[in-house]
Amino acid sequence: MAVRKSVKVGLLGFGTIGSGVVKLLRAHRTEIARRAGVPIEVAAIADLDVETDRGVPVAPARLTTDAMSVIADPAIQVIVELIGGYQPAERFVLAAIRGGKDVVTANKALLAVHGERIVEAAEKAGVRLGFEASVGGGIPILRIIKEGLPGDRTMAVYGIVNGTCNHILTTMAREGREFGDVLAEAQHLGLAEANPATDIDGIDSAHKLALLATLSFGVCPVVGEIPTEGIRHVSALDIAMAAELGYTIKLLAVARDGRDAIEARVHPTMVPNRHLLADVSGNFNAIFVRGAALGPTMYYGQGAGSLPTATAVIADVIAAVRDRRLSPEPRIPPWGMPQRLLRRLPVRSLDDLEGTYYLRFMAVDRPGVLGRLAGVLGRFDISIESVIQKGRRAGTTVPLVMRSHRVRGRNLSRALAAIGRMDGIRGKPMAIRIEEQLE
Amino acid sequence: MAVRKSVKVGLLGFGTIGSGVVKLLRAHRTEIARRAGVPIEVAAIADLDVETDRGVPVAPARLTTDAMSVIADPAIQVIVELIGGYQPAERFVLAAIRGGKDVVTANKALLAVHGERIVEAAEKAGVRLGFEASVGGGIPILRIIKEGLPGDRTMAVYGIVNGTCNHILTTMAREGREFGDVLAEAQHLGLAEANPATDIDGIDSAHKLALLATLSFGVCPVVGEIPTEGIRHVSALDIAMAAELGYTIKLLAVARDGRDAIEARVHPTMVPNRHLLADVSGNFNAIFVRGAALGPTMYYGQGAGSLPTATAVIADVIAAVRDRRLSPEPRIPPWGMPQRLLRRLPVRSLDDLEGTYYLRFMAVDRPGVLGRLAGVLGRFDISIESVIQKGRRAGTTVPLVMRSHRVRGRNLSRALAAIGRMDGIRGKPMAIRIEEQLE
Repeated sequence: MAVRKSVKVGLLGFGTIGSGVVKLLRAHRTEIARRAGVPIEVAAIADLDVETDRGVPVAPARLTTDAMSVIADPAIQVIVELIGGYQPAERFVLAAIRGGKDVVTANKALLAVHGERIVEAAEKAGVRLGFEASVGGGIPILRIIKEGLPGDRTMAVYGIVNGTCNHILTTMAREGREFGDVLAEAQHLGLAEANPATDIDGIDSAHKLALLATLSFGVCPVVGEIPTEGIRHVSALDIAMAAELGYTIKLLAVARDGRDAIEARVHPTMVPNRHLLADVSGNFNAIFVRGAALGPTMYYGQGAGSLPTATAVIADVIAAVRDRRLSPEPRIPPWGMPQRLLRRLPVRSLDDLEGTYYLRFMAVDRPGVLGRLAGVLGRFDISIESVIQKGRRAGTTVPLVMRSHRVRGRNLSRALAAIGRMDGIRGKPMAIRIEEQLE
Repeated sequence: MAVRKSVKVGLLGFGTIGSGVVKLLRAHRTEIARRAGVPIEVAAIADLDVETDRGVPVAPARLTTDAMSVIADPAIQVIVELIGGYQPAERFVLAAIRGGKDVVTANKALLAVHGERIVEAAEKAGVRLGFEASVGGGIPILRIIKEGLPGDRTMAVYGIVNGTCNHILTTMAREGREFGDVLAEAQHLGLAEANPATDIDGIDSAHKLALLATLSFGVCPVVGEIPTEGIRHVSALDIAMAAELGYTIKLLAVARDGRDAIEARVHPTMVPNRHLLADVSGNFNAIFVRGAALGPTMYYGQGAGSLPTATAVIADVIAAVRDRRLSPEPRIPPWGMPQRLLRRLPVRSLDDLEGTYYLRFMAVDRPGVLGRLAGVLGRFDISIESVIQKGRRAGTTVPLVMRSHRVRGRNLSRALAAIGRMDGIRGKPMAIRIEEQLE
């Protein structure tokens, strides 16, 4: 192979993913040069911490605390943003774009929330913007949607897209343990953040869902409107009851295309055990996509971690390098179509959606409670398919589990509020949607 | 959107997939124009049969029996070859390439066997060659490997890539029926060809495996050397015994990269029930990929059918259209790297591989048979982990099932040949490899 001048990459953020990128670009450099058509090298790295040893050899001259100097370096063609969060990440990304650099980022929050502004800048500057690493870690799901499925119309997307939540739910199920206990252990093992709210409250999943919906359906990002419920209140009892009924509880990110509105929601969901998504365990991710012509497809892999996520970053870098060798104009817009062609649709309120639910109440076992509870449900048009009552002992609090027929969201939330105020009911009533038809 | 001149496509072969392509390009034309940047239309279709109604409206002027006239049409930019088989498909594909057309094909046999010649012509002519539809039907697996995983080194690929075989094995397992019976039914239902040999003898899977290995490992296609065994001799008894032992029998296409040789083989395989591949049922396909950095990923979907396969064809057409708008030079070579950079490696012989096996013999239940059988196994260094003998009745033929420790392929085949000749053994001994570590 003729010796070619290498393409130079600047890294902003030298944490877990950043050191993975440096490691892989080195370990696979021959293979990557074969596939990209030219060698790729990290020319400069900016991080506030330039002292800590990341376990990858880097020439000290390449390390700086000054991100803007990396962005301004005329020898650098691609800027990789791995800082995360909104600021200063957005400022750096916009500066790189306006400076004519191709940008690769793993920043789902930034893209989901400020994506329109950033894509507008990228389209205007005529640069490439890759964010494969922002959803599904190493699973090339965004590329699959943009380049693998463009001949079809995607109808629905169901994703297990947060490895921390999936690890916690899987461990709770396997070991019969409670949420708080497993979360603390996960934090100790480095599988959950010290401040885990973004993960366990479903916010990270909602960010990813917004990006999946935008690419799949060609709609503007809708993250602020996505009804989002995390896994804090899922109990070992609910998981055990789910198993008894033939389901596994997963934090699912669901989006469905519609004519006047899209459906997009993140919440704990009962997935039938026969469905492939039920078998996605531990910190793995999977995205199940239903196409009008293609039918169901599923994409499975590690949703996080230094090296898996680094492979997604590098795939974007290679794509940018391949494209720019051919033409200054980007081959494909960041959203898979020009931003001005995206449809602007609202997200349907949970109030207007129908579904089948698992309901669990903690009731004092005494005469009349069940009757009054049934009365409230009836008043809100909620009909019950089956009831399970375990471990009855007069005067104590016992779980009362029900499976509803199809109910309307508005009715359900009103009924639950009323039941929560009932005498003889302890704690907050629990409702978990059953997705019988994941198709 | 500004009105743009549409890109014109010529179709060779107007069968199941061809009519799916026409149908989808029409049904999704707005969406496809948004994503491709320009409308795409079928300008001409060649087929020997121009009379039969395909259920899609086509102007008669566009139908011809003369494929060469379609290839020669200067208004046509992309030729889609859906004839299948070697000739005249190869002649048409080469003529289109030499005429400077981009080519999209679903022809796995042609690419696997004559791929080097065709890719050489495409690279020389500087045209795009897409063959996404040739492996995994609607699963965008080739694009995933070429564009989603180029930053990693792929170590192993395990594929369920023939829907007919998977349908037959799944039905045998669910209903406890024998192969011949289920095959006949599948033929009646249109799920198996009148001449099913290419599918059920594993040849189709070997073609697809050759393409997967070439793209994954960057090696020259090796189809002629792939040890290939189909599913004809798998019995309902073997499937039932597998279930009892915790396995599902799948026709697996396996490839692993190596330094001096690659491993590539197609054969019935016992997959642990806990593995996701065991849950891939009916006519679905799945490809499980292990990357050095990425770890395991899996891609699942419909491996055949008119519309699913048409989505893969259209993805390739859109990619060709997107690329050509930017530059006359193709963005990415057909194999993901220039053909001259592929390594030429031999395929390791089964004789030299080690593995754990399920063995089943039909033995006459009389004193001494088991002892002599054990003697032969011992002579060839085959040690047995466990034996299951069911339904003993003196003087009758009963199945004798064993699970071996790790054995060498050469020893196993010699032992089976010797046992097949033994007095007291009826029929051909059965050996099915157990893949305990699908990672």
